[in-house]
Amino acid sequence: MSEAFRIGIAGLGTVGTGVVKIIQKNGELLAARAGRPIEIVTVSARSKKDRGVDLSNYKWADKPESLADEKLDAVVEVMGDAEGTARTLVTNSLKNKCNVVTANKALLATHGFELAEIAEKNNAALMYEAAVAGCVPIIKAMREGFTSNRITGVYGILNGTCNYILTQMRVSGRGFEEVLKEAQAKGYAEADPAADVDGIDAGHKTAILAAIAYGVKPDFKSVHLSGIRKLTATDFKFAGELGYKIKLLGISKNYSGKIIQSVEPCLVSVEDPLAAIEDVYNAIFVEGDFFETPLLTGRGAGQGPTASAVVSDIVDLARGAKVPVFGIPASKLKTMENLDIGKTHSKFYLRMTVVDRPGVIADISAILRDQNISMESVLQHGRDPNQPVDLVMTTHDAVRANMQESCRLIKDLQVVQGDPCLMRVVEF
Amino acid sequence: MSEAFRIGIAGLGTVGTGVVKIIQKNGELLAARAGRPIEIVTVSARSKKDRGVDLSNYKWADKPESLADEKLDAVVEVMGDAEGTARTLVTNSLKNKCNVVTANKALLATHGFELAEIAEKNNAALMYEAAVAGCVPIIKAMREGFTSNRITGVYGILNGTCNYILTQMRVSGRGFEEVLKEAQAKGYAEADPAADVDGIDAGHKTAILAAIAYGVKPDFKSVHLSGIRKLTATDFKFAGELGYKIKLLGISKNYSGKIIQSVEPCLVSVEDPLAAIEDVYNAIFVEGDFFETPLLTGRGAGQGPTASAVVSDIVDLARGAKVPVFGIPASKLKTMENLDIGKTHSKFYLRMTVVDRPGVIADISAILRDQNISMESVLQHGRDPNQPVDLVMTTHDAVRANMQESCRLIKDLQVVQGDPCLMRVVEF
Repeated sequence: MSEAFRIGIAGLGTVGTGVVKIIQKNGELLAARAGRPIEIVTVSARSKKDRGVDLSNYKWADKPESLADEKLDAVVEVMGDAEGTARTLVTNSLKNKCNVVTANKALLATHGFELAEIAEKNNAALMYEAAVAGCVPIIKAMREGFTSNRITGVYGILNGTCNYILTQMRVSGRGFEEVLKEAQAKGYAEADPAADVDGIDAGHKTAILAAIAYGVKPDFKSVHLSGIRKLTATDFKFAGELGYKIKLLGISKNYSGKIIQSVEPCLVSVEDPLAAIEDVYNAIFVEGDFFETPLLTGRGAGQGPTASAVVSDIVDLARGAKVPVFGIPASKLKTMENLDIGKTHSKFYLRMTVVDRPGVIADISAILRDQNISMESVLQHGRDPNQPVDLVMTTHDAVRANMQESCRLIKDLQVVQGDPCLMRVVEF
Repeated sequence: MSEAFRIGIAGLGTVGTGVVKIIQKNGELLAARAGRPIEIVTVSARSKKDRGVDLSNYKWADKPESLADEKLDAVVEVMGDAEGTARTLVTNSLKNKCNVVTANKALLATHGFELAEIAEKNNAALMYEAAVAGCVPIIKAMREGFTSNRITGVYGILNGTCNYILTQMRVSGRGFEEVLKEAQAKGYAEADPAADVDGIDAGHKTAILAAIAYGVKPDFKSVHLSGIRKLTATDFKFAGELGYKIKLLGISKNYSGKIIQSVEPCLVSVEDPLAAIEDVYNAIFVEGDFFETPLLTGRGAGQGPTASAVVSDIVDLARGAKVPVFGIPASKLKTMENLDIGKTHSKFYLRMTVVDRPGVIADISAILRDQNISMESVLQHGRDPNQPVDLVMTTHDAVRANMQESCRLIKDLQVVQGDPCLMRVVEF
């Protein structure tokens, strides 16, 4: 057996502690698979509180940044945050020719190109399977498994918190705020839920997947973000009647070199495999020019799944694996050319609160007609003369800018109350 | 750019021709991903007939075995067959320190251990992503992506032909023979369908996945094989009523080091993700000690998907990847210890043709009671005194040997006609 593969772990939260647990329990198996033992040399965290794992055999570093100077085989960064200590540690480790394994999607999505350049210059590997979809080996699949195909689209349910909330809203008929509170109580959502429910986290993951898929520098800033806060119980009721489920999808599409990245709640047919992905599960579905739609799914968060991804990356490194950070050399990554999302087209779902009086549908239909939009269905439940009621329309294929303009015009109608809710209907 | 990665392709059937097409169309992209161009040097096939691809730039070898002596970087064996030329070519290539990429599941399941030893002795890689589930990167996931976990079970829909037939039988209510003919007409089933419908092909794949999962020598001979020929339209009708779909599952389970491998038609709940995998799609679902049930799915056969897997393996090799053939060194692979399948337990489905007369259910119930089996439900549709009718029972958790003994005793009852049909109900 070759000499040990020596690692340091920065961060002993849920994921870091999970990594220690796996290495302690499965050490012999990991050694057989890696061809050498995996040895935890140093750990670092904010406090020395009891985490239910024995850390007595490891060195303790008060400052996580110092792991970069320890001449380890790999530094495992599981602190999180796109800036600050995490960024410093990853950057300095790579500069010191030390491999890095991280679960940090914000860092990768924001500074990924810079890190890829540093990694390659210093012949160090940067691994981040745990950054997207927990135990689902999607980074490995994208960087190594799907290399034969020109990727044309990536569709993912990438945020377990949102998928849990959406599933519960659908099943229970409750509103967003109530279900969010439950998710927070269960530990599925943070006290400040913005990163999840506003689509930021899914946006980071979308940007990372797009970078690998299309050979471009990750560009989180150009991801169109739209979260799930505005969805109401009514939307789930109508979507269900129309044969759809509502899913927060992170989508990237390549239109002959111009790319669109978006995170938004979408309607998907109940028949579609993505519709079957419920609760905290994640799924990613990839379109290529030769294969047909492989779908990878699994639990997207939690200690076991996420730590599993980190440890598999460590084993890969111990075996000597080295893959370009985003699948091709950093010098070849192109700057992303964005296509105006307004120019894309799809079916749409439009929900409005209107005063129930004759002529409303005629007024709205006229606006849509003038924007060259053809309706597929109109749903209004019950009658309540002169009171606000929910009205839902679905369209045939329509240009997004025209839909957005229609929404603006519809909002100005006197009989319409509040903002119309517009959602894309995704067909595969 | 480094020098070209030189390959030879043995076999120009559907898959081999697909490999040529992908390399011709995506050459530049593959070179960027691999860090060097992929160059087809030599091809070989039974005849020089027109295959719709331009082969004029490649050397032609009349004898595929000769590719082993060409000093290539990799030989791509896509002829198939566990013996004969394919086996000779793969063996000799590895002996000549040449990497091999193959789609040959029969070869791997039958002679995999021997080949793994030869590969390692000669420091050559043996890649076979295309052998299981087409474009689904399950071999990469098992060998590299799931290395952190002790795998406890693998469940797969591994044969697209069978899944197509089962889907069509369910949807159309037609019998096996009729649907098989349609599948043959569509090119989804071979003229001699035995390898597919008798579970042999799925058995090869089950043995390969079990070898990687549990670190054992592949042992196809100990896979319990049961195909789909005996299923009737009635089974699909009753299964549907009970909330199940019928799927041919390749299953391996590790019970503290003792392993069971089986391929058999099983009932899975319509709620289960595997139930949503229809037609020619494949899916694999893996249980580990730290992650929770990742599921990989995609089209399991066909030119594009299978050739995609082959080419991704080639790119991996061109990048310098080298992973032990079954995930750990060949010298560490254990001989599989088999657990007696009779000792396992699960719920069961039992369909019998019985003469419709009083006392029949009492007789059958008595047999089950004596075998310590508790019934969950009994279904019989319509009444037809003294004529044969179908009777279906489902059981609570029961020992398989007891179920088999019950079937033997039930078959001997005068009122029972033909063989009872016994199927396992799989719960996840």
